[in-house]
Amino acid sequence: MSEQQRKLKTWQGWALFGGAMLIVFCLGLLAASLMERRAEVASIFNNRRFPMKDSIVSLNDSFAVDFPREYETWKMTADTTFESEFNGSQRKDVLAQRPNMVILWAGYAFSWEYNSPRGHSHAIEDMREILRTGAPMTPGDKGEKQPGTCWTCKGPDVPRLMREMGVANFYKAPWSAHGSQMMNSIGCSDCHDPVTMNLCVSRPALKEAWARTHNGEDVNTRPHQEMRSLVCAQCHEEYYFQKGTSYLVFPMDEGNSVEDIERYFDKIKFTDYTHALSRAPILKAQHPGYTLFMQGTHGKRGLSCADCHMPYKAEGGVKFSDHQITSPLANIDRTCQVCHRESAEKLKGYVYEHQRKVNEIRDRVEAELAKAHIEAKFAWDKGATENEMKETLQDLRSGQWRWDYAVASHGASFHATDEVMRILASALDFAHKARFSISKVLAKHGFTGEVPMPDISTKAKAQEYIGLDMAKMNGDKKKFLTTVVPKWIQEAKAKGRIH
Amino acid sequence: MSEQQRKLKTWQGWALFGGAMLIVFCLGLLAASLMERRAEVASIFNNRRFPMKDSIVSLNDSFAVDFPREYETWKMTADTTFESEFNGSQRKDVLAQRPNMVILWAGYAFSWEYNSPRGHSHAIEDMREILRTGAPMTPGDKGEKQPGTCWTCKGPDVPRLMREMGVANFYKAPWSAHGSQMMNSIGCSDCHDPVTMNLCVSRPALKEAWARTHNGEDVNTRPHQEMRSLVCAQCHEEYYFQKGTSYLVFPMDEGNSVEDIERYFDKIKFTDYTHALSRAPILKAQHPGYTLFMQGTHGKRGLSCADCHMPYKAEGGVKFSDHQITSPLANIDRTCQVCHRESAEKLKGYVYEHQRKVNEIRDRVEAELAKAHIEAKFAWDKGATENEMKETLQDLRSGQWRWDYAVASHGASFHATDEVMRILASALDFAHKARFSISKVLAKHGFTGEVPMPDISTKAKAQEYIGLDMAKMNGDKKKFLTTVVPKWIQEAKAKGRIH
Repeated sequence: MSEQQRKLKTWQGWALFGGAMLIVFCLGLLAASLMERRAEVASIFNNRRFPMKDSIVSLNDSFAVDFPREYETWKMTADTTFESEFNGSQRKDVLAQRPNMVILWAGYAFSWEYNSPRGHSHAIEDMREILRTGAPMTPGDKGEKQPGTCWTCKGPDVPRLMREMGVANFYKAPWSAHGSQMMNSIGCSDCHDPVTMNLCVSRPALKEAWARTHNGEDVNTRPHQEMRSLVCAQCHEEYYFQKGTSYLVFPMDEGNSVEDIERYFDKIKFTDYTHALSRAPILKAQHPGYTLFMQGTHGKRGLSCADCHMPYKAEGGVKFSDHQITSPLANIDRTCQVCHRESAEKLKGYVYEHQRKVNEIRDRVEAELAKAHIEAKFAWDKGATENEMKETLQDLRSGQWRWDYAVASHGASFHATDEVMRILASALDFAHKARFSISKVLAKHGFTGEVPMPDISTKAKAQEYIGLDMAKMNGDKKKFLTTVVPKWIQEAKAKGRIH
Repeated sequence: MSEQQRKLKTWQGWALFGGAMLIVFCLGLLAASLMERRAEVASIFNNRRFPMKDSIVSLNDSFAVDFPREYETWKMTADTTFESEFNGSQRKDVLAQRPNMVILWAGYAFSWEYNSPRGHSHAIEDMREILRTGAPMTPGDKGEKQPGTCWTCKGPDVPRLMREMGVANFYKAPWSAHGSQMMNSIGCSDCHDPVTMNLCVSRPALKEAWARTHNGEDVNTRPHQEMRSLVCAQCHEEYYFQKGTSYLVFPMDEGNSVEDIERYFDKIKFTDYTHALSRAPILKAQHPGYTLFMQGTHGKRGLSCADCHMPYKAEGGVKFSDHQITSPLANIDRTCQVCHRESAEKLKGYVYEHQRKVNEIRDRVEAELAKAHIEAKFAWDKGATENEMKETLQDLRSGQWRWDYAVASHGASFHATDEVMRILASALDFAHKARFSISKVLAKHGFTGEVPMPDISTKAKAQEYIGLDMAKMNGDKKKFLTTVVPKWIQEAKAKGRIH
């Protein structure tokens, strides 16, 4: 073999090796490409710089670069500074406005503190700060008041943690056990699959309820326009915690009306709490927003929540869904006026009129129900028997269930005015019946006068009347917020759960 | 003068005479033309073969030739043969459907007989046949139950007779004094000026009320679209008869809400009757259709009664207002669907749902109010004093006023669903309050049990309970209808008041 031949062979060897390497490299590329195909398609389609591969992404700010407009408007739900009649970010003390509610919830944590709902960005801080979650210094201690279930709707850390520890375990843990995990308030991944950004129900309760009532159907296969409400429905809906497990369940198996749900609860003999004054077996309603909306004018005509609460917004040539979810009255030009050719003033006026009419009945119900609970306590004190009080307690349960169902549902006086008025009229009926039957019981025990009424004209007086030690509760909460919560945040930062 | 000259003079004389005659004839023509100008202009415009010169024309069939389509459809309001859920011409016995109403109206003629409203053509016969107008054999005898005022809305003979005898005299005469005059049922000249066929309010009560509440304005100067409701409003509205004179007055001087009108009646210390059981000073509401319609969704958006109850109809190339005034649901393609792009089934469903919800509260109110009247009577029988019963009687007045106002207004559960529900919820509140206060009064008189309830499950039983002798009333009415009424018709025919 000549020098030239050897040189040729060496070069041929290098060429073959290079060719083989190239083939291996190309195969590697192909494999990678196949593996990432879904993400890439989404990336091309959405023009994303940071395509995601996981269908749960808890950090809301991960979405800021690729979805700047949605992210920026979502952040605006935090704004507590602007002055507007529609500012949904200022916390209002509802018990101070309507102290009768302290009486109605005597024996239940809602009598401690109950504030107006506000922007999605505030969910985590509001949950920590509200007295209802107590002041647990360590998980499960005497300051612990709620199960882990309470976090369920509060942000995209929830589906992550549910996947890590299992849904049932997530629910049954003490509330404070999840404290250092819950850092991102209601945001992107709660309603979107981060891989495709498709709308997607992320919480189990709606998925499970939908499957039970729709022959096993996956709720996430519903048409887009329905999904624009269903992602809201996973949280804005009536629910209850199963006894023992605290498993979160939607109680619509018997139907969607207030009577259907009551029948469901009666069937499983469910009670949220025994009233501290009247001893009535009370059902606490939880913002049945979706169900009532679907029974109203707009729901029946195929509108979705997003049509009015997330109207299209234009910035230059770009049109996108406004993620500053708020009252449609704050954007009448982009909400009501899309369909209704009337002045903003008139349209606003119609809504306020609905509210005024509903609230007129509501106020009467609250006054009568509060009196009924107080009178029932008076009857027990006079020696009334279980048997004598049976009818009264059932009427109180029915009346308060209807009142709470109508009142707890945000926006229902507009969403379904006539249904809410029907429900409240029925609540008023039950409240009066209860008072009537109590007076009959009292008469049997020799009392026919007017039952003395305590002064419950302010929240403080009403809370004192039902025996709450607010100073202690507020003190414990303050300590919890200044010692425990900072540790939660520190730990979360260290573990990269928040930036 | 020659023979020729004489002949010439004779001919000249005749020519002058003829010329003079021609001038006189022409002047006559001119005068006649001037006098009839208005009618002629209208005639040319309307293509009328029989132009009219009087703004009151009582005979409805005088309009048949010039307005065949309007006349034919108007005549269809008489049809009692066709089977339809919307047939507004079949008389239904409302007291048989809801016997509680017999109790609510105890002491008032409405407890004798109360039927569903029906087509305009039936107004005269229904007025003669209803027990409420009694059985007067001669004007003002013991069978006479009502004043002339009762005829006010029943047809175009009314404005004619009012012009002849004066409005106040028309009202204060006994009802039967007008019997032979009232032959033409609600028709053309009630809403149209026969000269121009312009829409025109013909009855004094609305004209007077409008002037009082609109700085003296003439209601007939309102824009056409308002007139399309105002001609209905002259009859479909709450009213009362002034004590002593039976003068018909609209009580909206304080405002149009149910509370405003109540305040007006309270101010003038007005009462329609004292309840036969409870002794409550009752206000009887009278179909406040217009007022409630104006407070509802469609009224607020500028629709008129005629838009839905007299929709345009096409016959060949001619488009005209359908004068078969009936439920808009009978013609959904020409009513709801003009604005709402939804199926007839869905649209009908919405209306029925409104009705169902309103009726749910209504039924509760009627049951509670009836019990309250019966329990109040029981309290009087037990020796209750005026002073003890004062609050109860006021609550009964307020509750029954609200109930009646909501229920008497035809179609209000659709026209103004939320306002009617608000009113009925308030009625329910008052009814319960009354029952509660009665039970306190009874307790003071040593009675603490359940007040025994009579069997009022049928109209007959309820009427017997309140002491009505229906056999006698029905017998008297039959005699009246077979002896007096035929004479009325005979006289009217002889005098050309009917063909």
